[in-house]
Amino acid sequence: MNFNYRVILKFLGILLLMNGGFMLFCLPFSIYYGGNDMYALLLASGSALLAGLVLFLLTRNGTNDDLRKKDGYLIVTLGWLFMSSFGCLPYIFSGAIPDLTDAFFETLSGFSTTGASILTDIESIDKGILFWRSLTQWIGGMGIIVLTVAILPLLGVGGMQLFVAEAPGISPDKLAPRIKETAKRLWIIYCTLTALELILLWSGGMTFFDAFNHSLTTMATGGFSTKNASIAYYHDPFIQYVIIVFMFLAGTNFTVTYLGLHGRLGKVFKNEEFKFYLIFCVAASIAIGLIIFRSGHDIFEKSIRDALFQVVSLVTTTGFVTHDYTSWPPFVTIIFFLLMFAGGCTGSTAGGVKLARHLLLIKNSFQELKRILHPSAIIPVRFNGKAVNRDITFNVLAFIMIYILVMCFGAMAVSSFGIDFNTSLGAVAATLGNIGPGIGTVGPADNFAHLPTGVKWVLSFLMLVGRLELFTVLILFTPYFWKRV
Amino acid sequence: MNFNYRVILKFLGILLLMNGGFMLFCLPFSIYYGGNDMYALLLASGSALLAGLVLFLLTRNGTNDDLRKKDGYLIVTLGWLFMSSFGCLPYIFSGAIPDLTDAFFETLSGFSTTGASILTDIESIDKGILFWRSLTQWIGGMGIIVLTVAILPLLGVGGMQLFVAEAPGISPDKLAPRIKETAKRLWIIYCTLTALELILLWSGGMTFFDAFNHSLTTMATGGFSTKNASIAYYHDPFIQYVIIVFMFLAGTNFTVTYLGLHGRLGKVFKNEEFKFYLIFCVAASIAIGLIIFRSGHDIFEKSIRDALFQVVSLVTTTGFVTHDYTSWPPFVTIIFFLLMFAGGCTGSTAGGVKLARHLLLIKNSFQELKRILHPSAIIPVRFNGKAVNRDITFNVLAFIMIYILVMCFGAMAVSSFGIDFNTSLGAVAATLGNIGPGIGTVGPADNFAHLPTGVKWVLSFLMLVGRLELFTVLILFTPYFWKRV
Repeated sequence: MNFNYRVILKFLGILLLMNGGFMLFCLPFSIYYGGNDMYALLLASGSALLAGLVLFLLTRNGTNDDLRKKDGYLIVTLGWLFMSSFGCLPYIFSGAIPDLTDAFFETLSGFSTTGASILTDIESIDKGILFWRSLTQWIGGMGIIVLTVAILPLLGVGGMQLFVAEAPGISPDKLAPRIKETAKRLWIIYCTLTALELILLWSGGMTFFDAFNHSLTTMATGGFSTKNASIAYYHDPFIQYVIIVFMFLAGTNFTVTYLGLHGRLGKVFKNEEFKFYLIFCVAASIAIGLIIFRSGHDIFEKSIRDALFQVVSLVTTTGFVTHDYTSWPPFVTIIFFLLMFAGGCTGSTAGGVKLARHLLLIKNSFQELKRILHPSAIIPVRFNGKAVNRDITFNVLAFIMIYILVMCFGAMAVSSFGIDFNTSLGAVAATLGNIGPGIGTVGPADNFAHLPTGVKWVLSFLMLVGRLELFTVLILFTPYFWKRV
Repeated sequence: MNFNYRVILKFLGILLLMNGGFMLFCLPFSIYYGGNDMYALLLASGSALLAGLVLFLLTRNGTNDDLRKKDGYLIVTLGWLFMSSFGCLPYIFSGAIPDLTDAFFETLSGFSTTGASILTDIESIDKGILFWRSLTQWIGGMGIIVLTVAILPLLGVGGMQLFVAEAPGISPDKLAPRIKETAKRLWIIYCTLTALELILLWSGGMTFFDAFNHSLTTMATGGFSTKNASIAYYHDPFIQYVIIVFMFLAGTNFTVTYLGLHGRLGKVFKNEEFKFYLIFCVAASIAIGLIIFRSGHDIFEKSIRDALFQVVSLVTTTGFVTHDYTSWPPFVTIIFFLLMFAGGCTGSTAGGVKLARHLLLIKNSFQELKRILHPSAIIPVRFNGKAVNRDITFNVLAFIMIYILVMCFGAMAVSSFGIDFNTSLGAVAATLGNIGPGIGTVGPADNFAHLPTGVKWVLSFLMLVGRLELFTVLILFTPYFWKRV
């Protein structure tokens, strides 16, 4: 047989069981705040658990040993789709988002940690449902951690084998003997940081509910907020700085954070991607801060803070907002548009292209200028001190080209519904990069509600493709994937 | 010595002598139309001839045998700059363009075959000067032909060795025994096609002067017109169709045209880039024609003709205009914006990325999807039936990455002068791709006059970088280029 359908379905069953289980975590908030969403949550949870149980029982005899590479692509893509299909039930059952397209968009925007929203009045939604909305992002973030450290390197997607598994001193045998163990350790970091942020935000004056929600969506670099004005609602500098720090941590390679927590700072600062990430965020923030300060935005500290917040929010693909950056000078809009293509570090929960890929390609481009002067010399690209295998560079280059192609076709598809130039480019960049707010009429001060149904499905597809590092999804559309071996 | 300065200066002297000589060709039109530009042209010509003579006499003892690769990059870049520095004298001396920045911009826009103009009332300019303006593009086109068939493959720039020298059946020994001979044969095609277009346009109702100018700027894929309304001035379908055909020919690899003229049509249609070019232009035109026809643009034939004209004009990077495409639906604006990155065929006078590079990279990206499924298999990219050396693919990939980088930095630089989002992106894409009109306030219905001085210099730099296939210019900014061996 071409695929091991039994194992694929078994995995999907397990995911649905998890999905249904997680929904139950929303009940305390539903009960505490006395909303009308309790039965909707119970019904949705029951549906997911039942479907999951049926799938699991029907397929429990399948063994994981039969799993092949091709099955992996299907499990990952279908996994995200199944999670979203059942994950949108609370919205529909509760009537918070009655339209199927909107509900699916919002859910996939959650599980893909994008944060693009079709809700126009978030604060009017019942608290249990709002918590589910934040939780989808956090679950998505957990999924991404497993995906990047364990699955993608095996599937050969986008140079992940280089950036994650082969990062300096983080070779599997040193960090953890087995992949399962690695994932578990990173999950512990993920959970600990979430708890730490919750405590800090709570102590900084947020309600426990808001602090919990924002810490879930920060660590997932998701960007869903419980407030219509996003983080701009909170004027307290402490809260904003806390979120900046945790967005930055969420966009950092979790294996680097692991090393940092174990006091191996030398290794942390030897990591080229992390150094680039740190310098890039600081430099861009200072530059933009000075520009908007000079253009009369606000006092100096607030200008730098707003710039820092928006830069870190975009680079990490979180999408939280403290100020509508599209209202700043055109130069700043261009920079923010370009920042949408940055992406955080590999091995983090951030989406987008990722800085390591940029770094590798920029280095390779400059090496090429050397190579044409000295064609007979062998001039490899070095990353973290090691010469990079050309196969991996090829893979990364193909990743970028496909990213651009998808971006172009996406913009064409969106604009074909009559959406204007800026909005088309902005919406596609923001969803493909899993950021959230874009530019134009889907900018930080707006949302995605007004877009036609067709556009929402196009953007949903882009969120999925972007989140699963392109190859994982797109390979399903090639004829040779389905060819019997 | 690190560079052979004597030979470099000798070449520049010869270029200036040619420049001064070409200026004299404008005198008949100056005299016939009785403009006030005769003395300006004579003075400019005299200056160029004198400077060229001095350089030539001072350096005539240098022999070409000493020429090295590094000298080649300097000659090419300085050559275009010297031509433009002296080429702007007729504008300044005649007072047609009194400002130095504007005059230099217009001249480099000519020699780089870009066609971006700062003139707001073209029809008020003296005929001798207008002819010089068109001639700069035609001379630029001649330069590009030598550059692509003879110089760039030797300098190892952007995969040219693959697309031009190694194109099917066009290996140097078959097309012409020596590079000099190749260039000469292609020049004959260039001149013949120019003459043919002149006759057709003249017989179609254009004045001899206008027909001459437009045939010069069509074959160079330049796009300078003698009319304020560009080709929209001529409502005659015959004239527009003639220009469409010749733009298409100018954007075709001249070695392919050579084969076609010698009746080897089988080889022509085996050329993958040409096939792609043909299908791409026809498909895009029909699609856009149908869209604008349905949106009520005009009758069916006119809708298709306008779409065909604008598509071919943009793909070949000519920049002639029969209709302001930014007034069409957003979907069409996005497509035209993306078409700015297409570029014509390699070995033509077209600028931009070039279709062969796109084709190679798209193929490589799809092969990569196969490679990740079968990592141990060797899956090469094939072009024109031959497996492509990975070094060349690397070179092309680096070309695209640098193109994108330059595009980003260019857009940032332009927007830093307060230019809006659309205009910044449009102006940079249109100048880097040597097209001419962009989108936003530098669209087909506007010109570049209103931009700040600083922006004009940035765009001038981009025209030069784009025209010389990036590497040739950018390598001069690397430290290892200037390092003594």
